[in-house]
Amino acid sequence: MRKINIGLIGFGNIGCGVVKILQQRKSLLSRKIGIEIVIKKICDKNLTKKRGVSVDKNLLTHDADEIINDPQIDIVAELIGGINPAKEFISNALKKGKHVVTANKALLAECGNELFSLARERGKNIYFEASVGAGIPIIKSIKEGLVANKFDCIFGILNGTSNYVLTQMSKESCSFADAIAEAKAKGFAESDPTLDIQGIDSAHKLVLLTYLAFGKIIAIKDIFIEGISQISACDIAYAKELGYEIKLLAIAKKKLDELELCVHPAFLPSEHLLSSVDGVFNAIYVSSDLAGDLMFYGPGAGQLAAASAVVSDIVDLTQDIKAGLFRPTLNSIEDNSIKGLRKIDEFENKYYIRIMAVDKPGVLAKVAGILSRFGISIASVTQKERLKSRSVPVVMVTHEVKEKNLRGALKMIDKLADIKEKSVAIRIEGV
Amino acid sequence: MRKINIGLIGFGNIGCGVVKILQQRKSLLSRKIGIEIVIKKICDKNLTKKRGVSVDKNLLTHDADEIINDPQIDIVAELIGGINPAKEFISNALKKGKHVVTANKALLAECGNELFSLARERGKNIYFEASVGAGIPIIKSIKEGLVANKFDCIFGILNGTSNYVLTQMSKESCSFADAIAEAKAKGFAESDPTLDIQGIDSAHKLVLLTYLAFGKIIAIKDIFIEGISQISACDIAYAKELGYEIKLLAIAKKKLDELELCVHPAFLPSEHLLSSVDGVFNAIYVSSDLAGDLMFYGPGAGQLAAASAVVSDIVDLTQDIKAGLFRPTLNSIEDNSIKGLRKIDEFENKYYIRIMAVDKPGVLAKVAGILSRFGISIASVTQKERLKSRSVPVVMVTHEVKEKNLRGALKMIDKLADIKEKSVAIRIEGV
Repeated sequence: MRKINIGLIGFGNIGCGVVKILQQRKSLLSRKIGIEIVIKKICDKNLTKKRGVSVDKNLLTHDADEIINDPQIDIVAELIGGINPAKEFISNALKKGKHVVTANKALLAECGNELFSLARERGKNIYFEASVGAGIPIIKSIKEGLVANKFDCIFGILNGTSNYVLTQMSKESCSFADAIAEAKAKGFAESDPTLDIQGIDSAHKLVLLTYLAFGKIIAIKDIFIEGISQISACDIAYAKELGYEIKLLAIAKKKLDELELCVHPAFLPSEHLLSSVDGVFNAIYVSSDLAGDLMFYGPGAGQLAAASAVVSDIVDLTQDIKAGLFRPTLNSIEDNSIKGLRKIDEFENKYYIRIMAVDKPGVLAKVAGILSRFGISIASVTQKERLKSRSVPVVMVTHEVKEKNLRGALKMIDKLADIKEKSVAIRIEGV
Repeated sequence: MRKINIGLIGFGNIGCGVVKILQQRKSLLSRKIGIEIVIKKICDKNLTKKRGVSVDKNLLTHDADEIINDPQIDIVAELIGGINPAKEFISNALKKGKHVVTANKALLAECGNELFSLARERGKNIYFEASVGAGIPIIKSIKEGLVANKFDCIFGILNGTSNYVLTQMSKESCSFADAIAEAKAKGFAESDPTLDIQGIDSAHKLVLLTYLAFGKIIAIKDIFIEGISQISACDIAYAKELGYEIKLLAIAKKKLDELELCVHPAFLPSEHLLSSVDGVFNAIYVSSDLAGDLMFYGPGAGQLAAASAVVSDIVDLTQDIKAGLFRPTLNSIEDNSIKGLRKIDEFENKYYIRIMAVDKPGVLAKVAGILSRFGISIASVTQKERLKSRSVPVVMVTHEVKEKNLRGALKMIDKLADIKEKSVAIRIEGV
């Protein structure tokens, strides 16, 4: 049976999972694909750490170049994460004629144009199934399963940590601080969860989904990103009362000839399928013109889930190698009907607004006056409590309004003498 | 650019969709795959029917052999459905060295062993993405995306018509007869919806999913199949009261060294993701050992959705052909830990039971006595109404019980003088 050699750069959590799977499923895989996948070299900074998997010591090295320069290695899996030196390792591997598998969403989001171009030049493929939704085969599905489709919109819950936090806040009625503490205690959040909570990780993944669906790598700085740290228990409670759940959504939406890209917490109708996606699960909703509205759901993280995706990429590459197939173009057909990115100011949404107003006559009239001046029409208003001379929440749901008008109105409202706290506005999606 | 010729057998609903897509996405596809897909011949019995798509008349033929015997055609798409002559067409195409795409679940479920063996012998591939879940890339996901996984269980809502009927009954509190009439009026049910409503169509699809996950083609006659025509509005109402939805599920579940296969209506907890799958949508829940619990959701039918899947198969075959790849083994690695099929008598489930009992002292005691004799323990009992000397529903939820014990007990209960109607029992799943 033909053998194909692979080299792993990174023997951490995912790398270790890949080794486990390739060891335990060796016979299953070779029977399925007619090729034996051989791990020829594993590189890591730390080679003494216990990993729960046993490998021949001769395979281990500190030096990535031993993999990159080995002419017998056909596939390099980069599993160290981060921008540098991962970028250099991948570039050099491509230049040395190797195909690449990576789970590195940050790197592909930041440097995808450069790396995909290099791969194209060199006639090599970069596969990255594990970079979005761990073991969910979302990238293969968009790229191959929906090969003939055009897309209106892709949106989803792409970060397990923040979804866990929001789920806890919703189900246990706890504060953001308590939920994040619990997520850390359970291993669902890193000690510094900033990238997850602030929406950056979701934005990286959104860049990749946008690339697959619309053929463009958009710079992170051009995406509107808002995290969940400002979400309060009371907004979650009001959301439920109004028939919504709050989810951190990453959204790529085609509006006429522009693309809207954003990551932000959103009100989703409770009956929407994504509203039932709880805890560390991810789900991606894809609106395609031929296959219709699809959803892909599964755990958003986990050693074996991510490694399952890396192994499926390795398997696909063995088939490409056997066949001499070169298919980077499958990813990257640009949707030429898209002329540019829409600025966040021009986005139109329904909004949930919570204003903290002193409960006395005339305040609501002033607020309503300002909203009306900005052309914002209100679908419903509820004043939640009555407490003379103290601030009480006034909760409103708007009809569709441009972001800049909403921001303008809130800025003016927040200057009123009877408004004691910064007003809260959360976009309503999926309706 | 290299051209690959295809022949379509069947110019009905899906065939027509395939032609539309290949015409409209010609440039997109050739840019993505570097190959031009050329429709060389289209065969149908009826060539005069208006189809909303224009094709060169020279492509049309009544004679499938013109396609099968054409040495310039590499891929045959069989889109006529039914067992004969579809089987003959596919066999002959394989024998003539062509790859095959089909959406024909009934044929593959009935004759899959024979056809897949023939393909293997001839070194050709049969792809069948459109046969389950229309445009949902479920087959590619299991076969390729989850290539390294073993499976505990696959279950789902595989039939749009019956799901539409159950959704209507649940949302509109209407009868089965009214719901089916509406489904027909809206084009969601065929004039004779027997195959859909009786669970046969779901069972065909279950055979294919079982083949992909466990490597065995199971005969339809060995699958326990129960349709939805016995589901009454009152059972749906009680389900909701108890926190469940009723869904027609197709289930393949590994229990120790046996496989349980069945299609039947089931109580699913309302918070289960599948409970939110409404109308003509399908969803497949896959429990895998590495990637975890995944769900795939989308429209279960529709011309362009099914055609989208057929086209993705054609595209994959063009890549296989370009590469000389032969990969029928990707489908068919048998899970050797499975020794046989479990008989329905031995299935264990929780049950919803509705008994129609005359409301007088002692009846419940007799019923409870029989249940206890069969070792059935009850988690909850509700008597819904009080109407002296008329039958009233007594609703019970059991703990886990073997099917044969439950059947034995109900048979005995139904013989009691005070039981006036046949008792109803519905399995509770997903818990």
